[in-house]
Amino acid sequence: MTISLPLGFHSYVANIGIKDSTNDFTLVVADANCAAAGVFTQSRFAGPSVLLSREHIANLSAQAVVVISKNANVATGTEGLSNAREVVSGVASALACDPTDILIASTGVIGRQYPMANVRSGLNSIPKQFTATSAEAVANGIMTTDTVHKVAQATISGSSARVVGVAKGVGMIEPNMATLITMIFTDAQIAPTDLDRVFRNVINSTFNCVSVDTDTSTSDTAIVMASGAAGSVAIDAFEVALYEVALSLTKQVARDGEGAEKLIEVHVDSAKDHDQAKTVAKAIVNSPLVKTAVHGADPNWGRVAMAVGKCSQYSDINQDNVVIRFGLQEVYPSQVDAAGLADLSNYMRGTDVRIHVSLATGTSDATVWGCDLTDGYVRINADYTT
Amino acid sequence: MTISLPLGFHSYVANIGIKDSTNDFTLVVADANCAAAGVFTQSRFAGPSVLLSREHIANLSAQAVVVISKNANVATGTEGLSNAREVVSGVASALACDPTDILIASTGVIGRQYPMANVRSGLNSIPKQFTATSAEAVANGIMTTDTVHKVAQATISGSSARVVGVAKGVGMIEPNMATLITMIFTDAQIAPTDLDRVFRNVINSTFNCVSVDTDTSTSDTAIVMASGAAGSVAIDAFEVALYEVALSLTKQVARDGEGAEKLIEVHVDSAKDHDQAKTVAKAIVNSPLVKTAVHGADPNWGRVAMAVGKCSQYSDINQDNVVIRFGLQEVYPSQVDAAGLADLSNYMRGTDVRIHVSLATGTSDATVWGCDLTDGYVRINADYTT
Repeated sequence: MTISLPLGFHSYVANIGIKDSTNDFTLVVADANCAAAGVFTQSRFAGPSVLLSREHIANLSAQAVVVISKNANVATGTEGLSNAREVVSGVASALACDPTDILIASTGVIGRQYPMANVRSGLNSIPKQFTATSAEAVANGIMTTDTVHKVAQATISGSSARVVGVAKGVGMIEPNMATLITMIFTDAQIAPTDLDRVFRNVINSTFNCVSVDTDTSTSDTAIVMASGAAGSVAIDAFEVALYEVALSLTKQVARDGEGAEKLIEVHVDSAKDHDQAKTVAKAIVNSPLVKTAVHGADPNWGRVAMAVGKCSQYSDINQDNVVIRFGLQEVYPSQVDAAGLADLSNYMRGTDVRIHVSLATGTSDATVWGCDLTDGYVRINADYTT
Repeated sequence: MTISLPLGFHSYVANIGIKDSTNDFTLVVADANCAAAGVFTQSRFAGPSVLLSREHIANLSAQAVVVISKNANVATGTEGLSNAREVVSGVASALACDPTDILIASTGVIGRQYPMANVRSGLNSIPKQFTATSAEAVANGIMTTDTVHKVAQATISGSSARVVGVAKGVGMIEPNMATLITMIFTDAQIAPTDLDRVFRNVINSTFNCVSVDTDTSTSDTAIVMASGAAGSVAIDAFEVALYEVALSLTKQVARDGEGAEKLIEVHVDSAKDHDQAKTVAKAIVNSPLVKTAVHGADPNWGRVAMAVGKCSQYSDINQDNVVIRFGLQEVYPSQVDAAGLADLSNYMRGTDVRIHVSLATGTSDATVWGCDLTDGYVRINADYTT
């Protein structure tokens, strides 16, 4: 299936020699300045790309977004900030627009300067016209250790307008108010303040609910741009389509977690409030003992009880009232016999494992996504830079 | 080296058929009721052993501690509580003392009932006299997936009294106010309230600063007993010896973390307060990306910057003022060149890796201990129960 960008957007993807010969320079350009919103990492080591994009999107409009992959340009000091400004200026000059209309994101190794000679000749090679519209090419251009590109689209009900999103990110993934890098485009016409509000809502229940390894990136960036080329739409219908795209990308990120072989979905309900539900769900999906049990299809459900138990800040959680299920099978308090353990192990052999915990402390719920912990994760990360 | 228990303590270690033919029943008995203190897991899924021990140690005295290994007796409902009471009663009956003078700890798989027929015949086989004094035998009896037993001793300055401790625990290790299981014995004479106060101090800066995998056990139990058989000592000298023993056991636990090949020590200083220092240090030692980099001797120091950065609750941390060192080598902000990266990788090939971060937000500090994340951890935990 080929997915094209929505009306009003074109792209340019190239190799400019950041690290190797794979594509590392990705530009998505709107035909005209358009409504835009963004959320970014809260890391205290946020890189210059995040700092510049935060400034440039404050007016809720943008003309283009440029992504450099294979180098995060983080922890690079004043030289790194100056280099990021030079990239933004170079792109703005090629597009004949103001630098403040350019958003920038960068992803890859931390603590290395860009190879600026290569970057400068790359900037000089930006064409005058953009004709490419493949969303897959954009998704490919922003990859680092991703094994597959992540694209999703939805049509906005009652209109011909579409929402198309791309994302990357397989490690250092536990976003806090954003994800590693995701860019979502729509040709719907959306007022900038509506776009900003709806985008933050959707990110909170999708990308902010995924965790591969509890590590929050220094470069998390989520951007949405609305060209308006397909006309106006109902804002609720837009939110539904945006949610569908963001949820699909979120699950694609979790499933492609470094070394991952399985998607884990944890649903916690009957909680005091959403925070409690999400905190407990995150404790489960992030537990290395739960993640390895899922990896080995080991029916060691007691590790879920352990993960609930370690949320010791919640004195209202009473172990006598908690219910734990894998798929539809209750494993606690109605303890499973040998046949039940065999059924459980069989269920855990699937590629999608759903854990459902009811806390009996209220009526709120939350769903989070993660992946299993494998030998592959260790191998990938024991020699990433070398 | 053979380490004996301090004067006034004897032991009995046996196999009673909890899971296999290895020792699984360990009893340490004081010649007379003695001063005791304990700290326990804060898990909301704490098992009946923890509930009973908490009750029985409230009066700061005890006669004996019994440990069953290979089964945690956790998430086992009223039947599990009743079984734990039966173990305590059986031991009290054999020792001709009150059940409330018996402490109990249990460690192993969660969610399984004890094999009570075996437990009952084990209780009936407890001898009338205890002659064994080997601390190593005690440390062996309480092991589960530990690859080595953990024992440490120190002599209290200005006296002949000793402090001898044992510990077990390799996974599900991020104690919160206690560790998986550690028992420390002394023949010094210490007032119960002094023992309790000094023990809590020491646990806070030792066992509460270790993390193998961020998972907090449901069974964490730390107990100290003072027989008084070697007479009175200076309380400060006792604290020094107790700290030495607890620190040694803490490092032994970290170094024997499941699958671990290296000890990681993280020291954070120039912090606003101890909490900030410890939170940042824990974020570093628990980061799977830092742990895998250490495993692979990958000089990817940027991951330490990432881990500091994700402590986004601390707006006073300014990346421009942070200093990061591995051993004595500064890697940030004075960025390392290729030769420096080679030196760093060489340092990281050692079995002990020390990471030192200065935050420039104050004058407090903290040290925590952990281990690398290896293929071995994944393999051990992907099929623990099966």
